[in-house]
Amino acid sequence: MADNDRMEKLVSLCKRRGFVFQSSELYGGLGSVWDYGPLGVELKRNVKDRWWRSMVHVRDDIEGIDAGILMHPKVWEASGHVAGFADPMVDCKTCKARFRADKLADAQCPQKPSKHPGDHTACELTEPRQFNLMFRTFMGPVEETAALVYLRPETAQGIYVNYLNVLQGSRQKVPFGIAQIGKAFRNEITPGNFIFRTREFEQMEMQFFVKPGTDEEWFERWRALRWQWCLDLGLRAEKLRWHQHLHGELAHYAKAAYDIEYEFPFGWNEFEGIHNRTDFDLSRHQQYSGRKLEYFDQERNERWLPYVVETSMGADRCALVVLCDAYHEEQVEGETRVVLRFHPSLAPIKAAVLPLVKKDGLPEIAERIYHDLKGRYTAFYDDGGSVGRRYRRQDEAGTPFCITVDGQTKEDGTVTVRHRDSLQQDRVDAARLVAWIAERVAA
Amino acid sequence: MADNDRMEKLVSLCKRRGFVFQSSELYGGLGSVWDYGPLGVELKRNVKDRWWRSMVHVRDDIEGIDAGILMHPKVWEASGHVAGFADPMVDCKTCKARFRADKLADAQCPQKPSKHPGDHTACELTEPRQFNLMFRTFMGPVEETAALVYLRPETAQGIYVNYLNVLQGSRQKVPFGIAQIGKAFRNEITPGNFIFRTREFEQMEMQFFVKPGTDEEWFERWRALRWQWCLDLGLRAEKLRWHQHLHGELAHYAKAAYDIEYEFPFGWNEFEGIHNRTDFDLSRHQQYSGRKLEYFDQERNERWLPYVVETSMGADRCALVVLCDAYHEEQVEGETRVVLRFHPSLAPIKAAVLPLVKKDGLPEIAERIYHDLKGRYTAFYDDGGSVGRRYRRQDEAGTPFCITVDGQTKEDGTVTVRHRDSLQQDRVDAARLVAWIAERVAA
Repeated sequence: MADNDRMEKLVSLCKRRGFVFQSSELYGGLGSVWDYGPLGVELKRNVKDRWWRSMVHVRDDIEGIDAGILMHPKVWEASGHVAGFADPMVDCKTCKARFRADKLADAQCPQKPSKHPGDHTACELTEPRQFNLMFRTFMGPVEETAALVYLRPETAQGIYVNYLNVLQGSRQKVPFGIAQIGKAFRNEITPGNFIFRTREFEQMEMQFFVKPGTDEEWFERWRALRWQWCLDLGLRAEKLRWHQHLHGELAHYAKAAYDIEYEFPFGWNEFEGIHNRTDFDLSRHQQYSGRKLEYFDQERNERWLPYVVETSMGADRCALVVLCDAYHEEQVEGETRVVLRFHPSLAPIKAAVLPLVKKDGLPEIAERIYHDLKGRYTAFYDDGGSVGRRYRRQDEAGTPFCITVDGQTKEDGTVTVRHRDSLQQDRVDAARLVAWIAERVAA
Repeated sequence: MADNDRMEKLVSLCKRRGFVFQSSELYGGLGSVWDYGPLGVELKRNVKDRWWRSMVHVRDDIEGIDAGILMHPKVWEASGHVAGFADPMVDCKTCKARFRADKLADAQCPQKPSKHPGDHTACELTEPRQFNLMFRTFMGPVEETAALVYLRPETAQGIYVNYLNVLQGSRQKVPFGIAQIGKAFRNEITPGNFIFRTREFEQMEMQFFVKPGTDEEWFERWRALRWQWCLDLGLRAEKLRWHQHLHGELAHYAKAAYDIEYEFPFGWNEFEGIHNRTDFDLSRHQQYSGRKLEYFDQERNERWLPYVVETSMGADRCALVVLCDAYHEEQVEGETRVVLRFHPSLAPIKAAVLPLVKKDGLPEIAERIYHDLKGRYTAFYDDGGSVGRRYRRQDEAGTPFCITVDGQTKEDGTVTVRHRDSLQQDRVDAARLVAWIAERVAA
């Protein structure tokens, strides 16, 4: 299957089955904003919960926070975003389209498209201008006197400005980390590729504060941990690779940076970034706020500004990676089967309960089983159409287990459990189902 | 204890123990935006998870979604927010302060404060002007040609514009509901009372679509369900009451509205709203989008526009209600004990593990127990200071169970479990602890 095709089919499945809808579709859509439907919201919740659990709940040395999207505008002066968070923009005088000057190779002139992507010989391009990517708004009752504030372009700054508060309230000692999940906004010149690059998106960021000199060791440790986390999502290892930022690519705050890249249907692209941000942010906030942000090491009686190792992933992008990796088409009994092979812990619906026929008391037994499961997991009840069609519907939703109640259930209390990926069928004691599934969906 | 005092003490505890910090405090704070610290983020997560579970996971007739904060601007024309979502504002010419004309009774002139709250006889007030509460921003690369968009002032519209998509993708039939948790923004003239009324806040809204004519019955049903939900949070019944919106108070879209009010330290105020929004929103979106939004009832072969019963609660406000209701001071052994009596399912930390002394192998046993628990619950390990002081620290965090490992643990494998509220102490087999706590923190 061609890769363009694959992406189109995925987007179409996402809409049809209620994973992702275009925002405000009723009004023709809003550029680059997407809404999560009933299955998508559960998938994304599972992604975020898994990240939060691995960062905050399981580890002793990371605290969670949830800072506001709106912050004091000085924060963005200190962080360098007011002065430098910009992309170079060029306009085509022929077609009036606007491109990122550094991404021309991915763009096409809409009026004079060439057969060679990135060929702009027919375009008349302006000189690049810098365009700041932060959304601006005014807070307070009247615009003239109100404060100009920004929608945060990254969650990380909410961590830096709270670092002392967390340190004092939590009894942590350096090395320790602060993790956060929340929305961020970037007024991208050319968003695109479905939920890959959007103007409104959700980040999962963790800043790990370490003693200067130990930063390179911690950087390597976090690279290894994050690689393993991606594998634990059930992703295929051959679809992941490292990309090291070389000198020209490094952000203004970074001493070293590696991306974990994923091979999307539209090519290899960034999935997660791991950055050595040094003491850049804390030293700037120290300078701009006039407040000391040094850490006092009681054992050695030393004061120093911590270095920071950051791990930064988009929750939407992670959901997209999971969707792309899970999407499969295969031939089964002469028909094309579309199946989303989610890791069971990520699947929006854990189990579907299906009475084989709508009679002989089977629906009543099936409903009892369904309600038992629903107390513990997301479950779905379906008695419409042939059991084969019902299986296919669950395959498209990525449900790992289909539980069929049949004649034998009435005799010996067992049900058929059909496995989404192998299509294997087991007989399981209905009374043991809750525990049987629990063992298989554990993270 | 005076009620002002009580609120001040709660805010101070929230900062000291890491529940809630002022946003951008390093830069003097940002008006009416608050950040959740390590304990606060867990409390708010528990509140939101409990709501989501009760709405989406347990019920068969409600689907979840997660729509963007940014929506097509037409949405807010259709909803009536562009024309009518405004508060009347007056200025005091003496002191230059600005007030809500309809809330003057709660305000004081800062330059000539009276002993009687709401007395503005010394003020020289302007005529009221209408001030639209929606935050505005521009989306797209250059301001001149970019689209004016709003930060949504309510999550409900994200549900209305997706109602047909959800209906088609989920196989629900009317009556059914759509639930959503997400941020909303209102440029309030006078925000205040800590996290009670803030300019950035998180809503938990559910819109229930019903056949016209059955709306009053469903309205009563949802009133009863939401009242019970508040009681199930562990709140004291005498702190809750109903407030019916009379004709002058009703919002432009509402046929009937009741608030559940809570008695905060600063008085009775809205906690949750239950509204009969009729077909106002769907009919307006039908009109503005030119798309039919009618429901087709297959059984009766009828088409009609559903009526909507809405339940609308702020997640931040719910966290504040839970904090206010939990906050207690009491005299124990001649000392003042500050304790947060959270329902165990809402407590940020479920259990603290404390070795009685830092020797005789007790820390090793305590750490093993701690790591067993931490796989399942949020747990905290503390070996610093006297056990009495460690109990008090957990009381302030609202931890329902303190588990002390002592000499007897080495002999018979039992630990002391101290109950936060009753101060009763039980001996429990350490091997049974995970299950023992599970029974007590279940929602």
